[in-house]
Amino acid sequence: MASPPGRVARLAAWERRTDVPLIVLSLLFLGAFTVIALAPGLPRVWHTVFRAVLLITWALFLVDFAVRFALAPRRGAYLAKQVLNLAILLIPPLAPLRVVGMLSRAGIAHRGRRLGVRAQTAWYAMLTTTLLGFSASLSALIFERNAPGSTITTFGDALWWTASTMTTTGYGDTYPVTWQGRLVGSVLMLSGIGLFGVVTASFTAWFVSRFDEDPPA
Amino acid sequence: MASPPGRVARLAAWERRTDVPLIVLSLLFLGAFTVIALAPGLPRVWHTVFRAVLLITWALFLVDFAVRFALAPRRGAYLAKQVLNLAILLIPPLAPLRVVGMLSRAGIAHRGRRLGVRAQTAWYAMLTTTLLGFSASLSALIFERNAPGSTITTFGDALWWTASTMTTTGYGDTYPVTWQGRLVGSVLMLSGIGLFGVVTASFTAWFVSRFDEDPPA
Amino acid sequence: MASPPGRVARLAAWERRTDVPLIVLSLLFLGAFTVIALAPGLPRVWHTVFRAVLLITWALFLVDFAVRFALAPRRGAYLAKQVLNLAILLIPPLAPLRVVGMLSRAGIAHRGRRLGVRAQTAWYAMLTTTLLGFSASLSALIFERNAPGSTITTFGDALWWTASTMTTTGYGDTYPVTWQGRLVGSVLMLSGIGLFGVVTASFTAWFVSRFDEDPPA
Amino acid sequence: MASPPGRVARLAAWERRTDVPLIVLSLLFLGAFTVIALAPGLPRVWHTVFRAVLLITWALFLVDFAVRFALAPRRGAYLAKQVLNLAILLIPPLAPLRVVGMLSRAGIAHRGRRLGVRAQTAWYAMLTTTLLGFSASLSALIFERNAPGSTITTFGDALWWTASTMTTTGYGDTYPVTWQGRLVGSVLMLSGIGLFGVVTASFTAWFVSRFDEDPPA
Repeated sequence: MASPPGRVARLAAWERRTDVPLIVLSLLFLGAFTVIALAPGLPRVWHTVFRAVLLITWALFLVDFAVRFALAPRRGAYLAKQVLNLAILLIPPLAPLRVVGMLSRAGIAHRGRRLGVRAQTAWYAMLTTTLLGFSASLSALIFERNAPGSTITTFGDALWWTASTMTTTGYGDTYPVTWQGRLVGSVLMLSGIGLFGVVTASFTAWFVSRFDEDPPA
Repeated sequence: MASPPGRVARLAAWERRTDVPLIVLSLLFLGAFTVIALAPGLPRVWHTVFRAVLLITWALFLVDFAVRFALAPRRGAYLAKQVLNLAILLIPPLAPLRVVGMLSRAGIAHRGRRLGVRAQTAWYAMLTTTLLGFSASLSALIFERNAPGSTITTFGDALWWTASTMTTTGYGDTYPVTWQGRLVGSVLMLSGIGLFGVVTASFTAWFVSRFDEDPPA
Repeated sequence: MASPPGRVARLAAWERRTDVPLIVLSLLFLGAFTVIALAPGLPRVWHTVFRAVLLITWALFLVDFAVRFALAPRRGAYLAKQVLNLAILLIPPLAPLRVVGMLSRAGIAHRGRRLGVRAQTAWYAMLTTTLLGFSASLSALIFERNAPGSTITTFGDALWWTASTMTTTGYGDTYPVTWQGRLVGSVLMLSGIGLFGVVTASFTAWFVSRFDEDPPA
Repeated sequence: MASPPGRVARLAAWERRTDVPLIVLSLLFLGAFTVIALAPGLPRVWHTVFRAVLLITWALFLVDFAVRFALAPRRGAYLAKQVLNLAILLIPPLAPLRVVGMLSRAGIAHRGRRLGVRAQTAWYAMLTTTLLGFSASLSALIFERNAPGSTITTFGDALWWTASTMTTTGYGDTYPVTWQGRLVGSVLMLSGIGLFGVVTASFTAWFVSRFDEDPPA
């Protein structure tokens, strides 16, 4: 068994080497998920292929997580830091959020070059909102499409429902009727409140700053 | 009659001795309340038993409050501090919130050991939200289940209604029709706005701080 | 014509002398308004009496405003300061808000005695919310009660609609169908967002401060 | 080809000379748009005239943008600054927002004369909200009026829908059914959250400051 310093170095090496492959897997997952959700009329064989892609990418996420966990020197603290990875294992449609994670790590490393802290924060919040909303629309569509009494039967309905849920508007012209759809909705409401809080705070600060600066000479 | 210093010491002793028993009573209350709400088909004798548990725990909350009030040196100031206890006497389903109260006292005593102030605040806000939402779902279910024209007839409906109310989404697919249910809803909206305000403030601060820190070397 | 200093002194004297009578008139207005809204089945003669009370109190508000305006040394600046009085003339159901105005002036004079700044702010925001919500419920009831297709036909409905509107929940089980009711609703949404913003900011600050203080020794 | 310093001067001259004409064009656009939306029964020839006004003003916006872009010394940076102009080209009903832009430039130049920074910020946020809400009501009316199953068929409906959407209340008594109307709705929800965040922050700061100041002597 490796000594802790050796394990730390091997963990860092593993994280460096798997960064790009995990993003590729996430996009692969998102692609297969999108096809399954939006093209239910596809020949059966294709559905089997895309379902296999989902299963294999998920299995690889599991393997990656197991390796990281095995290499981590202090496992309790590591678990607490890997909330996103753990959430992706439990709710695979969150996988595209890995893209935000990688971009934000890259952005932090290059910080200060092009964008201020506030703009960068707003930018990642908007990217997270978009990816989360897209995945949630697909998930809701899969669960609700064939439910009796459903009001979410097309991708347009699903996108509209997602917008009205994340902003907590909730018209009630579209709403989930299955418990899975309601779970997706609950996650959307909560994350919408949080993410729009970030965007609003940034927007308010920017709007106020416009009138706070010196006038153009 | 004891002199004020003696009463202060006796009040402190009473509070120390009743802390754990009150939590146990609260959990007992919650258990009986859950059974009554979720198992309406139970034999009548069991319902009588659980109703008796509710009544007895409530009576003990009343006795505890009376003793504290009698021992308090400055009763007006003490009443103002005991808003939660008073609210539990008037609206017993709030009893589980005692758990948050005790945990937060314990957390403040051990503060600084594991979690920062911000994380701790968010944590208690989430715990309060969960307990309040659970109790409110049970209460709404009891009041609405048999009301004519009701849209909240299962525990799943009640949980979904609670989520859409606390986040002020309000789809309108489920809504209370009795005045008791509407009162529960009004409390939920108001406390939801407050509690999610706390969570959002913490989340925004955390999200911003990610881009505010030094990049990893 | 009096010299400006004389007019300033006379304006101050007028404001001092009319403070309490205006509150009494506001409460009289609210009482008559409440009776008209909640007791539509009253004998016709009583309705005439209460309508007369509304008209007379409104006329007295107009006289008071005219006198103040005549006495004000700089009328433009004075108008800008008297937004509340002007709003009450145009929308008389806002009259009870005078109570908040007087209490807040009294509270500012005695500031620091009993409550901190934050608690006082939250307190007045809650009082304003309650009075505004009560007046709006009465107004909506009057406009909506007999409208075809109305969903707000009892005072209970009106209170529930007000709660769901001010918190921007908006279930859609109750909603105004007349343009007057929709105008009341729009005012409620906007003031709800503002007032709950104040309450939430205070609550969040209080909640965070609980975990920010030194632990009890 | 002009040297960069010459181009900077020519760009500044162009911006100075087109400021007022662009506002006039924006108001012309808004006028024609309002007539088309609110008077669908007008003789066909008039509709053709107003549609021509829309097309010509839009073409002039395009020409203006092309000239600015051609003159800009650093085109990438200039594009990032011209987000509003670009948005107006893509979504012409946003054109009235130019008025806010010009007023805010004038306000910044004259800053400190009459209004504090906070009041000015709130003022522009309210002006933006009003113009955006008016344009969105007209747009929604045009798209929804003749859609099957539509609930937005009069300008009153459209204004009420806009109010309930921008405040994220979302009763669900009125809601868009076309994808264009839903797009308008999504823009309204997002901008409503942002703009009301600005207004609320200003209102909260003002409300708190009332109790923070010294009492009147």
